[in-house]
Amino acid sequence: MRLKRKDFLSIAELDKSEIELALKSAESFKEVSTREIKKVPTLRGKTIINLFYESSTRTRTSFEIAAKRMSADAINISVASSSTNKGETLSDTARNLEAMSPDCIVVRHGSSGAPAMLANYLTCSVINAGDGAHEHPSQALLDMLTIKEKFGTLEGIRLLIVGDIAHSRVARSNIIGFKKLGADVLVCGPPTMIPPGIEDLGCTVVNHIEEGLGLADAIMMLRIQTERQNHTLFPSLREYAKLYGLDKKKLERAKDSVVILHPGPINRGVEISPEVADGPWSLILEQVKNGVAVRMALFYLLLGGPSVDAS
Amino acid sequence: MRLKRKDFLSIAELDKSEIELALKSAESFKEVSTREIKKVPTLRGKTIINLFYESSTRTRTSFEIAAKRMSADAINISVASSSTNKGETLSDTARNLEAMSPDCIVVRHGSSGAPAMLANYLTCSVINAGDGAHEHPSQALLDMLTIKEKFGTLEGIRLLIVGDIAHSRVARSNIIGFKKLGADVLVCGPPTMIPPGIEDLGCTVVNHIEEGLGLADAIMMLRIQTERQNHTLFPSLREYAKLYGLDKKKLERAKDSVVILHPGPINRGVEISPEVADGPWSLILEQVKNGVAVRMALFYLLLGGPSVDAS
Amino acid sequence: MRLKRKDFLSIAELDKSEIELALKSAESFKEVSTREIKKVPTLRGKTIINLFYESSTRTRTSFEIAAKRMSADAINISVASSSTNKGETLSDTARNLEAMSPDCIVVRHGSSGAPAMLANYLTCSVINAGDGAHEHPSQALLDMLTIKEKFGTLEGIRLLIVGDIAHSRVARSNIIGFKKLGADVLVCGPPTMIPPGIEDLGCTVVNHIEEGLGLADAIMMLRIQTERQNHTLFPSLREYAKLYGLDKKKLERAKDSVVILHPGPINRGVEISPEVADGPWSLILEQVKNGVAVRMALFYLLLGGPSVDAS
Repeated sequence: MRLKRKDFLSIAELDKSEIELALKSAESFKEVSTREIKKVPTLRGKTIINLFYESSTRTRTSFEIAAKRMSADAINISVASSSTNKGETLSDTARNLEAMSPDCIVVRHGSSGAPAMLANYLTCSVINAGDGAHEHPSQALLDMLTIKEKFGTLEGIRLLIVGDIAHSRVARSNIIGFKKLGADVLVCGPPTMIPPGIEDLGCTVVNHIEEGLGLADAIMMLRIQTERQNHTLFPSLREYAKLYGLDKKKLERAKDSVVILHPGPINRGVEISPEVADGPWSLILEQVKNGVAVRMALFYLLLGGPSVDAS
Repeated sequence: MRLKRKDFLSIAELDKSEIELALKSAESFKEVSTREIKKVPTLRGKTIINLFYESSTRTRTSFEIAAKRMSADAINISVASSSTNKGETLSDTARNLEAMSPDCIVVRHGSSGAPAMLANYLTCSVINAGDGAHEHPSQALLDMLTIKEKFGTLEGIRLLIVGDIAHSRVARSNIIGFKKLGADVLVCGPPTMIPPGIEDLGCTVVNHIEEGLGLADAIMMLRIQTERQNHTLFPSLREYAKLYGLDKKKLERAKDSVVILHPGPINRGVEISPEVADGPWSLILEQVKNGVAVRMALFYLLLGGPSVDAS
Repeated sequence: MRLKRKDFLSIAELDKSEIELALKSAESFKEVSTREIKKVPTLRGKTIINLFYESSTRTRTSFEIAAKRMSADAINISVASSSTNKGETLSDTARNLEAMSPDCIVVRHGSSGAPAMLANYLTCSVINAGDGAHEHPSQALLDMLTIKEKFGTLEGIRLLIVGDIAHSRVARSNIIGFKKLGADVLVCGPPTMIPPGIEDLGCTVVNHIEEGLGLADAIMMLRIQTERQNHTLFPSLREYAKLYGLDKKKLERAKDSVVILHPGPINRGVEISPEVADGPWSLILEQVKNGVAVRMALFYLLLGGPSVDAS
């Protein structure tokens, strides 16, 4: 089985059956990481380059582990040591890397659309590992997998996403993905963090977190990116925590069966309190576990099966 | 054969037979690095993460080479690119990494006790690769192996350790380890670098290096950590070198059969003179060689044999 | 087959037959990177260390991919995280690494002669991946391979090198190498960038690029290292581009069959215009592709065949 596309750039471009194929593959690859010998020979002799223009321990490590468990060779390139220092354009860097015959380049970049631009230039596969405020599609797949495992389906599930919707590629990819699989998505955050027109993606805006809590089957708390954000978007972290942070008291309004997600890394005491992050409703570590499985599946679906031309 | 413990955190927690098992295993793994094909399939499909909060070319490389020679997949994470920048706690970082199903996390951290805290949270194995001024247990094992290879035993051997005893995790681990194997340990350094109560570990303090030199079978010169130290601990590097540095003149007082160790990297002309570092008595490079063997043995003893539960 | 030398330090030290052997081997290894499974088991169980004191995405990645396609274990060490911060000498670093039993250390260093000095200390193989303004011999091999593939031979080919000849290790290695294989080499650049006595290497200096263009079968444009150079060597980048940069207009003076090379990363609009860099005459990406093949060949010729002593 193989995705009938060269690249994995966004959830927006996938149709429902492609998302379902990716989730189903991920479910089967998840088992590999539970074995004594956590490795399949499927992608032996393939070269996967992780090209990260923004640092991310979690995402880079997840892709690297996924590549190695598929027996591919993984090469890490981080921006700090890259020749962008030397004034080379992104596309020149990518075309030069492609000349070394990789099978896939995983790209994280601060600019929306950078992976798509590269995909256009390159004949090898490109995976978007997060681009600006655009999309983080492998994150959305792992979130979908996590909730699907819990409820058996996404059809009719109601997801509440809380935080900086305007600047979150995680939110964007998830809104689009969950809608495609029949879920209902509510978004909530300070007015400065809710982009005008977000309803066009098919979600509903709720102004106060309390309104959404009782309706949600799953709640995804977004990270307040204290290192990146324009701090004028809200008065203070303490104020944010009080109004939009999820603590045990607010959680009392939620369904008994509610589950909590967070893309990580978490800011304990800001958007999520320790009791909520560590409680039985938390699927945060399950998300991370599913991340490896999703990335193994993506590598497989893009590189692993008999090629599309051959079928 | 397997250590009957999940983690390798300190020499203090090991009993004599466990240390001897580790040394014996290291001796047999040492041979692997002399082969044409320096690799055994023992840990194929295992994932080992090197999580370094302090940089160390030598130690990280040694663990990485050891992992690869055992056929494990090695993943490097250094603090600079880690999400601690993003305010994540150490335990959140570690639990997230664990969710990716590694078999072992090797941790170096500036705070004493950090690896032990992680080991407590995690179900995978944790190896302490140096924590604050607490312990550097794999270093002590390689030092013990190096001296044992030379003299056939540690029983009755007299080791003199010279330098900043107070801030040295290497000294601590070695004092404890050598004592457990029946050696006699002398320590020497400026009074500001000898912690009160160090004798409780079973060693003897000598005030002037000259007193200890003639008594020692092995001398371990500690690194003056010019980049880390409070410079008020001694007047000047030149003064330190004069009083506590080992040069050829001082070495004349030592036994003919004396051997010299140093955990590296060495400051030539400070704690050790070039003639001493490079002379026939120097086992410094043998220590490094043994480091790879010791780390292969640790991976094997923690991850490799039939599991303890299964036996 | 094996090079009858331990190290690969310069083009200057190779004789014609050794260069031809390297090029021939590279041609055959090039095919490996076109396979579905881009990997040969030749160097399984060998350890290759990339020790980079200057950062270089391209060169480090090329060596790393080459090592992995030969099934060797590759270990990366970059200066930022190295113990040179801790005052260790280059030779101590290298001898310590050697004690970990690598088969080859690939060194890039800012000082001319650093790899040769290391080779002298070490019993393992050393490959020079660029040292100061001295040599970049693997780059010269890939350039020779690229032009040889195009014209079938280097005998009688005329190569024009344009740029900062004085500070370019690429230029030096190429002048020497192309001459050894019977090519004719012209060099051109601002007078401040043409070292006195360069003719002793067997090349001819042309003062204006226009003089050389019509004579050349191949043109190699050197990178203006804006990040490194003394800017007093030429008045401005714009001035440089106008006088020595290759654009489509200047290219009209060249032969129809001319090919363009550049060691990368390119400064579009400075030493080379986009139309020239991306046109049909450009072999820039072919150079990168050949880089992997050349490095696979070097690893094979130094480490792979039956050892010289055994033959």
